Amino acid sequence: MSSASTPFTSPWHLAQRCQRMNPSAIREILKLTEQPGVYSLAGGLPSAETFPVEAMQEAVNRVLAESPREALQYATSEGYAPLREWVSAQMRANGVDAPPERVLITNGSQQGLDLVGKVLLDAGSTVAVEAPTYLGAMQAFTPNEPVYASVAGDALGPLPEAVAALQPRGGSGVRFMYVLPNFQNPTGRVIPAERRDALVEAAQRAGVPLLEDNPYGDLWYDEAPPAPLAARWAEGTIYLGSFSKVLAPGLRLGYVIAPEPVHSKLVQAKQAADLHTGSFAQRVVHQVIKDGFLDRHIPTIRDRYRTQRDAMVAALREQLPAGSEWQAPSGGMFVWVRLPAGCDALALLPRAVEAGVAYVPGSAFYAQAPDARTLRLSFVTLTPAQITDAIGRLGRVLREHLGAPEPQTAP
Amino acid sequence: MSSASTPFTSPWHLAQRCQRMNPSAIREILKLTEQPGVYSLAGGLPSAETFPVEAMQEAVNRVLAESPREALQYATSEGYAPLREWVSAQMRANGVDAPPERVLITNGSQQGLDLVGKVLLDAGSTVAVEAPTYLGAMQAFTPNEPVYASVAGDALGPLPEAVAALQPRGGSGVRFMYVLPNFQNPTGRVIPAERRDALVEAAQRAGVPLLEDNPYGDLWYDEAPPAPLAARWAEGTIYLGSFSKVLAPGLRLGYVIAPEPVHSKLVQAKQAADLHTGSFAQRVVHQVIKDGFLDRHIPTIRDRYRTQRDAMVAALREQLPAGSEWQAPSGGMFVWVRLPAGCDALALLPRAVEAGVAYVPGSAFYAQAPDARTLRLSFVTLTPAQITDAIGRLGRVLREHLGAPEPQTAP
Repeated sequence: MSSASTPFTSPWHLAQRCQRMNPSAIREILKLTEQPGVYSLAGGLPSAETFPVEAMQEAVNRVLAESPREALQYATSEGYAPLREWVSAQMRANGVDAPPERVLITNGSQQGLDLVGKVLLDAGSTVAVEAPTYLGAMQAFTPNEPVYASVAGDALGPLPEAVAALQPRGGSGVRFMYVLPNFQNPTGRVIPAERRDALVEAAQRAGVPLLEDNPYGDLWYDEAPPAPLAARWAEGTIYLGSFSKVLAPGLRLGYVIAPEPVHSKLVQAKQAADLHTGSFAQRVVHQVIKDGFLDRHIPTIRDRYRTQRDAMVAALREQLPAGSEWQAPSGGMFVWVRLPAGCDALALLPRAVEAGVAYVPGSAFYAQAPDARTLRLSFVTLTPAQITDAIGRLGRVLREHLGAPEPQTAP
Repeated sequence: MSSASTPFTSPWHLAQRCQRMNPSAIREILKLTEQPGVYSLAGGLPSAETFPVEAMQEAVNRVLAESPREALQYATSEGYAPLREWVSAQMRANGVDAPPERVLITNGSQQGLDLVGKVLLDAGSTVAVEAPTYLGAMQAFTPNEPVYASVAGDALGPLPEAVAALQPRGGSGVRFMYVLPNFQNPTGRVIPAERRDALVEAAQRAGVPLLEDNPYGDLWYDEAPPAPLAARWAEGTIYLGSFSKVLAPGLRLGYVIAPEPVHSKLVQAKQAADLHTGSFAQRVVHQVIKDGFLDRHIPTIRDRYRTQRDAMVAALREQLPAGSEWQAPSGGMFVWVRLPAGCDALALLPRAVEAGVAYVPGSAFYAQAPDARTLRLSFVTLTPAQITDAIGRLGRVLREHLGAPEPQTAP
């Protein structure tokens, strides 16, 4: 085969959807901030200190001793039956009626987002999202070429009147609304029970079903969040759960609970996408959690993250210049900050990195009309002392930029 | 929330692509044949006897002792760097120039098929496939709503003149041709070197790039197959590899090697689909294989499967009625049989199951114009004695149906 016979032009023709697929802004920024001497508050990773390595080792030993062939063989697309039963029981305890037959095990809840997009979105159909919303969800939906409708919200969540005004399903109407009710990424806000009721009622009236994403629900530091949206509208809600934040993300294990006829189509989409989720990972995780391990383990994660949350909240109170807005989150991993007028979080990032602190500019999290003054801070990867130091650096950068005075309460 | 406020009609509106997504015919048939007393030759599973459980246990212990946090944490979408380097070196040994930067680790090669479809197929664009072809590939492509062009072939593979006649890329032209050169699923045929040359030349002339799928290449029983298509046309070929048949499918590990600009888009599609392939599984597999384990392990799989292949070929020769056509495969897991005129493999399946033997009717493997006389037999899951017994039962069902005489060489 001489290279002379090779045509000069590339033989590849990319699909149209590729024009809208771009590298993750967060990941590209993370690469820039992976420098020695820079405190990164930009990550979305849980603390590796929380990973239960010993329990994993024991579980692996049991699985390889008791069911090595099954753990290493092909398996059903729906997932490992005992794990689906565990999820079902867990959901029932949270007020959601989800029989095991409607649980689909996925490669993390990110794959749940991908499969739901595949099954519910045509090119040109609409997805309603919060403003801001989880960036990764938009990345998962975008290959299906939808349009986004941002739903106005306040500190308690999406506004019911904005939800009620959505165009109903069908054609280019709204196929579903994506909501992250507990300790949202990026804002950290939790939707209270009354707002959940009103939101669900508005969605029912508008005929717009819900996609409820709940990766952070177990990470509460003050009080447990209200029952899921799926507990209020089972037949109109798809629910996504994950083991990434309470066990370990490197196993890539999550689940989708969907009403029929969506569940059956999700299973077919899963089969076409990768046949099934790894049997070994599913059996190991089930072995770890089946006897109540998470009931003992999750409180230790809460204690760790609560201390870090408190350190960040205290430092922000001391260090951020007047005119900064933020809410102390009652769970999750993030604080969402709105800087004073005259600050552009993206434009200020290089100066912050130079001063030794990195964050994620908030504009990436908006489907439309980004608020350039916003930024996201993670409080779970640094120690309390490092957090204090990091927020001190951020405060100095902001005060310098604004020509603001030193904080009165600074040491 | 009273149930009276719930709208009576379902709020869900499925995407159009769902109309073309159906349960896998093979999997549905497999369920029917999972009865005690039925020899299943219908499976596509490798033999669990070949899974290296001890090596896995040692590798897990090492990974959890040496890099537990990294193995359980989020990781890059491209895959674990040392595993990408291993794949690159392996490919180089096979004559393919594939730097680690162009290797993407996937959840089995099935996910490679899904990602390639996402990145290269618009609704209405054409995929060229062999007739017959791997059913799972069509399932992976179908959510993108392509049309299929079946390429005529003979016992040596697709006909170069049929490839040369394909409409070139762009618009509704052929975006790529999907080929499984080594011990194809379902036919077991290997494409010889001269036909590979001619095929690649024809594809280059037609401006049709290639998607080369190679899950079975290491499973040769007589002689190693010729160099991959990617070794002949690197910039016009995407190559898919898998650890499922040489190590264990339950880990869900495969890889895609693609030229730019396709590789970058595949990485973005992977990130959107599930962030990354499990870090734990990647590190464990790398730990198992990094010091030449497969060079010792694969020959043991070959010895096992060769014996089974020989048993099946001998039994077919003895038991199948005159007018049956099949080729002894020189590798892989399958024998493809064409029954005599007057036999419909799908219609005969219930009688075969009643007689205690199951197979996959061949019609499922055709994009167009299925040949109802064909069927696929796997020879890797039963023992040689069971294979002999199973093929004896199949022979009896066929002879009864045809009113053919008992075989002269029967014991």
